[in-house]
Amino acid sequence: MLPSVILACDPTISYRLYHTCMAPISVSGGEGNPVCSHSNPPIPPTNCCSPVNFLELEDHQGLVAAVFGILFSSVCVLVLDSDPLPFIASSSPQYWKIMALLYYPAFYYPLIACATIRHRAGYFIGCLLSWCHCVVHIWQKVDCPQSPKIYRYYSLLSYVPIILCLVVLSIWYPVLLVRSFTQKKPAAREVMHCSFLSNLCYVHSAKISLLSRAQMYLRSYIYTPQEGIHIPLHTVCSAHQAFGSQVALLLLVVFIPNIQIVRAGMTKEITVLLVQFGVVPSENPGAVSVCSLTVCYVCSLVLSCLLTFSMLMRSLVMHRANLKALYRGDVLDVFYRAQMLCPSQQALVCWMSFASFQTAFACLGLLTQQVIFFVCTVGFTFLVVIPLQSGTNMHLFKILENMWPFWLTLVLAVIVQNLLVHFHFLEKRHLQKELTNRRALCIMTYLLFPINVLVGVLAGVWRMVISALYNAVHFCQLDISLLNRGVEAFDPGYRTYCHYLKIEVSQSHPVMKAFCFLLLQLPGPGGQTGLKPTDVEEGIQLMQPMKGLLKASKSKQMRARWGLAYTLLNNPSLLACRKTVLSDLTANGTQSCPAKS
Amino acid sequence: MLPSVILACDPTISYRLYHTCMAPISVSGGEGNPVCSHSNPPIPPTNCCSPVNFLELEDHQGLVAAVFGILFSSVCVLVLDSDPLPFIASSSPQYWKIMALLYYPAFYYPLIACATIRHRAGYFIGCLLSWCHCVVHIWQKVDCPQSPKIYRYYSLLSYVPIILCLVVLSIWYPVLLVRSFTQKKPAAREVMHCSFLSNLCYVHSAKISLLSRAQMYLRSYIYTPQEGIHIPLHTVCSAHQAFGSQVALLLLVVFIPNIQIVRAGMTKEITVLLVQFGVVPSENPGAVSVCSLTVCYVCSLVLSCLLTFSMLMRSLVMHRANLKALYRGDVLDVFYRAQMLCPSQQALVCWMSFASFQTAFACLGLLTQQVIFFVCTVGFTFLVVIPLQSGTNMHLFKILENMWPFWLTLVLAVIVQNLLVHFHFLEKRHLQKELTNRRALCIMTYLLFPINVLVGVLAGVWRMVISALYNAVHFCQLDISLLNRGVEAFDPGYRTYCHYLKIEVSQSHPVMKAFCFLLLQLPGPGGQTGLKPTDVEEGIQLMQPMKGLLKASKSKQMRARWGLAYTLLNNPSLLACRKTVLSDLTANGTQSCPAKS
Repeated sequence: MLPSVILACDPTISYRLYHTCMAPISVSGGEGNPVCSHSNPPIPPTNCCSPVNFLELEDHQGLVAAVFGILFSSVCVLVLDSDPLPFIASSSPQYWKIMALLYYPAFYYPLIACATIRHRAGYFIGCLLSWCHCVVHIWQKVDCPQSPKIYRYYSLLSYVPIILCLVVLSIWYPVLLVRSFTQKKPAAREVMHCSFLSNLCYVHSAKISLLSRAQMYLRSYIYTPQEGIHIPLHTVCSAHQAFGSQVALLLLVVFIPNIQIVRAGMTKEITVLLVQFGVVPSENPGAVSVCSLTVCYVCSLVLSCLLTFSMLMRSLVMHRANLKALYRGDVLDVFYRAQMLCPSQQALVCWMSFASFQTAFACLGLLTQQVIFFVCTVGFTFLVVIPLQSGTNMHLFKILENMWPFWLTLVLAVIVQNLLVHFHFLEKRHLQKELTNRRALCIMTYLLFPINVLVGVLAGVWRMVISALYNAVHFCQLDISLLNRGVEAFDPGYRTYCHYLKIEVSQSHPVMKAFCFLLLQLPGPGGQTGLKPTDVEEGIQLMQPMKGLLKASKSKQMRARWGLAYTLLNNPSLLACRKTVLSDLTANGTQSCPAKS
Repeated sequence: MLPSVILACDPTISYRLYHTCMAPISVSGGEGNPVCSHSNPPIPPTNCCSPVNFLELEDHQGLVAAVFGILFSSVCVLVLDSDPLPFIASSSPQYWKIMALLYYPAFYYPLIACATIRHRAGYFIGCLLSWCHCVVHIWQKVDCPQSPKIYRYYSLLSYVPIILCLVVLSIWYPVLLVRSFTQKKPAAREVMHCSFLSNLCYVHSAKISLLSRAQMYLRSYIYTPQEGIHIPLHTVCSAHQAFGSQVALLLLVVFIPNIQIVRAGMTKEITVLLVQFGVVPSENPGAVSVCSLTVCYVCSLVLSCLLTFSMLMRSLVMHRANLKALYRGDVLDVFYRAQMLCPSQQALVCWMSFASFQTAFACLGLLTQQVIFFVCTVGFTFLVVIPLQSGTNMHLFKILENMWPFWLTLVLAVIVQNLLVHFHFLEKRHLQKELTNRRALCIMTYLLFPINVLVGVLAGVWRMVISALYNAVHFCQLDISLLNRGVEAFDPGYRTYCHYLKIEVSQSHPVMKAFCFLLLQLPGPGGQTGLKPTDVEEGIQLMQPMKGLLKASKSKQMRARWGLAYTLLNNPSLLACRKTVLSDLTANGTQSCPAKS
């Protein structure tokens, strides 16, 4: 079967036309957003683009994740693309690639900005834009499904994740638009959960049965939403896109073309070589090896995807646990040493790059795992499975068979040492065991030295394997360091996560948010008709019963002070901000809260 | 140059004759030792083969290390040997190899046993035995320097470490013999050091200048003997032999034959291939590549040996620090969680295999480092050094040159983020910095996302490299775990070390030893003429001034009780043994101390 020549193909709507039309809209849309939201006073300033509700959209996490997914997929396409900016015919693509890294975020910015306006007009524009992008992309790919680049369907497949994300957006925006007509206040959640502070202060009791410990362990890998504690959008978003995009990326850039290459490259020569080495049986060798390689590839891909997915889930669980611990003030439990939780330059830079790092690390981790598992499964297949099936090439089994006295000796040595220690070198005296027969112990130690060296070599190999596997599997988890205690901070991923966590905690303490909301409500038009924040936490619930008792401006001030005192009393981690808050309170009245800028 | 055929050579004193003569002597010597030391009442039982003074020889660490070195070298020779037990012509060598693993320790046992007798006769027999072994080995190798196995001089070189260790022994024993004539009590050290308790209780003050911190850091890699605290012989011995033998091993089994193989294998075909790829210049390619490979090999060998050596030194320093901390009772500082320090079956098995594990891990670590550094230096040489010298094959430089806009963009992006954060997103309010311009911060985070993904890929690669390098370099250090916090115990090396440390501490607390010595002195022939222990620590010094005040058996009991109370008061880690000690004291008088069995 000869590969047919694929000609370059120009879609009806050229890339040039598409970008030339859409880019001005994007720029105007991007500019339009701040104007819109600045002219929209009812939105409480606390919700306005604080680091917690990243890009102001805590209740549209899927939407934000989809836009970030589009961005990431564009970067992936860009890396292998020879024509980075389709509307500029360039002679030096590498400069334009760098420009494209800045161009694409701006190009897709309106898709995210339209949701931040929280207004029908914004949703309507969002609908139009996402439909427009989606239709153009689908049309282009239907027009030209094949391209001469890399692999016949490479161009088509590399755009699949972008098109999928655009489809999500083109469904999300109409839903928002429809909801804005049926609901009066779509952003304000009326139901508040009463479990926040109990959640925060709940510490597991010391005595736990084995079964419930196993359940807890399993649960620590499954992220279940919990009332009161919201995972910051930044994290969810990065986890979503990291996983979603990376699977797509792998499927496209690595998987399908590679299998094609394997099929194409499995020439006669390699097959003959494999047959000569006795690795594959001589009947129909090509089919066997291609088939088994494909199976190995799919198995390792599935395994590494599952592992990465569970590690990202675990990251979310760990992040929530860390947030809760820091809200309680347990800095030592999270960072293992005393740390200031206030923002610093380094911390803020790390916060800015956290989502990107999470994405990049997840992709790298997946690739590493894929390579390791592929090599392992191929080794297993060609050394164990195929020999067992075909009965040839039993090298490994022969070696193992010849070495059985050696293995037996090692096992016996370990058993003998255990038995000797149990019955001869230890005796139970009163409350604890004590050494006895010290002379015999020393002589046995000396005599068993050579055999224990061989046991030690096995233990050393196991140490190597387990540490390499552990690091490969946990590579995508930024919340644990791959280095030893004491040098943990030299791990760039862990360092970024720690700084990110500091910023998150310092800017998003739920009791502080509740307190800010209380302060903001004071100058409102009427006590009971004030706005409810979108990110309401239980802290606020605790202070609600006070409302009825207070009337005049005197009582308002009293209420603010009581709120402050109560907040500080229950949240020792906020004590660092005490001076600022107090002096600001005295000086400017309600302008004090750091979360309100 | 054709390799001349090397014929098998029989030495004048055949291996068979040597082993047939020496083995019965060894067996009788091995049996003789317990008899000798049992018939030698003046040796205090506390010194008799307690785990601390491993094989009863705390003041002959070099001697014990030499014997263990002989054992380890024999194991190394055995692995590649086709004729494991020279006096038995066997058809199935693998069974005899296993027998040899038990035979060699027994064969060399008299060399260590003669020193444990602490008597002139023992030293004299030791002299004769070590001279005998040494002369026979040297004679055999002079007779037959070449052998047809593996490499021409392999047999000669593989026996060099054994011969060196035997030379050490043949010098050590005569010195001991001479010293036994000149000194009356060679074992009793008259000078006791007064710094033990101060050493034990010395904790560094919190404020330390940068310079002294750097000094401390350097000092933590250099083991300097310290008064009062003796490193257990087990550790010193394993570190000595691990390093000494392993360098010898590497030099012999890996280094010289491999260089020979490289020289022999650098055939015309490979050289032509290298020239075709432009890796080596076309003038005299063979010499260049052989020469550079040799240089790389030697460099990586030296580097890995130095690193392993410094890590083993560091292990010793860390071990002393851990011992001191545990003597003080700081269990949490060492194990990071509460642990019982009493002996258990698992702990004792680990104690028995610790020296072997340390040796095996050091060898494996050295081999791993050697491979990694060799690959790195070869890569560096052929990609950087030779191209720079010859001016050809500038592939790497061309790639780097073409990518400079990319690197510049990444650097600029990081700098821009830092500047923006410093001047625009952070403002100093009162005592701490606060976030400001949140909207711009979010938009910048979004816009810089694609570039930060690329920065993240670099950070991820760095994470991979640094964790792999850290693990490879610290592989031989058993006192640190290569796994993350929480799963540390899954590292077999660290687990073994923790158990070993528990046994060491539970059996060798210096104040307990001083206390036991005090108890043992009581039934002695006269107050001032009692024996002084060889392992005297400062604890005893503290109790000496009491001696003059007490006279009768009543006062002796008082003194014992006071000693106990004082000991327990100052050493909370001993409190676990309190019940046992107290009840034993009441029941058996002086039979109570666990260190005296």
